[in-house]
Amino acid sequence: MTTVAPARVRESASVVRPALKRALARLDPTSRAIASYHLGWTDPDGRPQEGGGKAVRPALALLSARAAGATLETGLPGAVAVELVHNFSLLHDDLMDGDLERRHRPTVWALWGGASAILTGDALLVLAQQVLLDLATAEGAAAARLLADATQELVRGQAEDVAFEERPVVGVEQCLTMAAGKTGALLSASASIGAVLAGAPGSLCAALAAFGRELGLAFQLVDDLLGIWGDPAVTGKPVLSDLRTGKKTLPVTWALAHGGAAGTELADWLAAGTARGEEQLRRAADLVERAGGRAWAAAEAARRLAYAEQALLAAPVPADACGDLVALGRFVVGREC
Amino acid sequence: MTTVAPARVRESASVVRPALKRALARLDPTSRAIASYHLGWTDPDGRPQEGGGKAVRPALALLSARAAGATLETGLPGAVAVELVHNFSLLHDDLMDGDLERRHRPTVWALWGGASAILTGDALLVLAQQVLLDLATAEGAAAARLLADATQELVRGQAEDVAFEERPVVGVEQCLTMAAGKTGALLSASASIGAVLAGAPGSLCAALAAFGRELGLAFQLVDDLLGIWGDPAVTGKPVLSDLRTGKKTLPVTWALAHGGAAGTELADWLAAGTARGEEQLRRAADLVERAGGRAWAAAEAARRLAYAEQALLAAPVPADACGDLVALGRFVVGREC
Repeated sequence: MTTVAPARVRESASVVRPALKRALARLDPTSRAIASYHLGWTDPDGRPQEGGGKAVRPALALLSARAAGATLETGLPGAVAVELVHNFSLLHDDLMDGDLERRHRPTVWALWGGASAILTGDALLVLAQQVLLDLATAEGAAAARLLADATQELVRGQAEDVAFEERPVVGVEQCLTMAAGKTGALLSASASIGAVLAGAPGSLCAALAAFGRELGLAFQLVDDLLGIWGDPAVTGKPVLSDLRTGKKTLPVTWALAHGGAAGTELADWLAAGTARGEEQLRRAADLVERAGGRAWAAAEAARRLAYAEQALLAAPVPADACGDLVALGRFVVGREC
Repeated sequence: MTTVAPARVRESASVVRPALKRALARLDPTSRAIASYHLGWTDPDGRPQEGGGKAVRPALALLSARAAGATLETGLPGAVAVELVHNFSLLHDDLMDGDLERRHRPTVWALWGGASAILTGDALLVLAQQVLLDLATAEGAAAARLLADATQELVRGQAEDVAFEERPVVGVEQCLTMAAGKTGALLSASASIGAVLAGAPGSLCAALAAFGRELGLAFQLVDDLLGIWGDPAVTGKPVLSDLRTGKKTLPVTWALAHGGAAGTELADWLAAGTARGEEQLRRAADLVERAGGRAWAAAEAARRLAYAEQALLAAPVPADACGDLVALGRFVVGREC
């Protein structure tokens, strides 16, 4: 599997960034400055910096327009909007999770306080709707509706994620439902919003949405694997970060439910809930692995990717757009950060 | 001036509540339960309770439809949407301001933590858009756009409000601009969204928006007066709450800018920033009053109400709807909580 972003992802980042900048220009200077920092474009003092996220969601949105036989540009407002919603959720999540770093840099709330993270997140969420509604077309309104529905799912998933931390037992199915909301919904919207903006038939939009939803689950499974076994130098997250916070991620949930003696030991370890040094965290990671959580999550990610590709291949998508979407999906599952 | 809600406000609350309940039914059970508590419908354990806010914004939205010659029902999705956005902002504001009580009850974050306030607020904001976009009409999309623009203004105003607390000096004009965002924008949208949903001409929508914007400034001025001189038993806020937190409200800002010796004394008192007992707070309130801040704010509220009525009377609004809007405006300015 590839770990270098396919050409389409790099290309789409260069198309989307200027459009995203134009959208941010509508915000007040403070929110704009904080959002620019959060997006990796500036340092805390506002000086230009190289950086930014993987931009998987905007790439999906642009390819989605091409999958419907339209130009990349048709999908551009959708690409901007899904990236804004994604970053709204990161700003709020970092605060709620108490995460001090993202992509090797201090988080917004850690630098400027909780109110800044809340307000900038709110501003980006509303801006996403404005970008689509300003089109003042029926397609723009349909895209805004699709995105609002996905955002509501995303918020539900995040609420479940927070609630799970308090619960001693969470089932694998519950955890997959949570991940479908937290990650699947926005990837599903990303993969179909370009087609919606292109006025494509409902059946094609639905196939693309299914592709995105399955890919989203694969994405979350890989994220959870990287949260335990990822290289902190590459992921930009603290070592073993998800075990440190006791998060009920998918590999952990599977290990607890199906892991035999190792799973029971892991449950005891989680219930003890004491402050954890790195050695202890490594032991817990070994327990998840011995219980089969790592292998299951990797296999499940591959399975979800296969479902995603099946959904795509069953739809009337032009061969080049289809190839690009498949490459993007494989990149998402094979990535190291 | 009247302090009892006009018949139209009471009537609209009874029309809007069932529609608001239907909208909330789309949320996950946790967000729904927290929102029901926040709206005053249930106690912290989910048992039904009597209560709720003034519902000024939904009443404006319903009357706005009638002002355009349509039925109240035409404005109903707008009424629900503006009330949802208002409550989104209250949930986030209470957390950012650290307010422990609202309407004589513990705030959501005080009961369930910051994450619950953030996520429930996010859910209500998105739900507001869903309610309008689900109409799947051009008018619904136009209303969604109007509301998104107003919400962006609201977030900007709130960001300024938070930023002002850190600054030693804030001008009266700056403070009025902040209030126009924080309160004026959503009242403006409330007063015009019904007409937009009714497909009314742009000139009528603009006149209603101007009515709402001026009324919003009057509303904020009265709010600021009540935050200092209101009766805590009636307002549900702690006694002298805005002085306690050192907020740069409009009467305080005016007193600092134009208040002569009393204003200078007030500035010194604010700069000292020590923990304040009630006696000290009463002294500060007297300083604001002696500096002319109270009289100015009351006069400015009356002036803004007059502007609002002028905007309305210049527009082709049917006499009965016009009378109801004027009565609602006078209630807002004459209220005691």
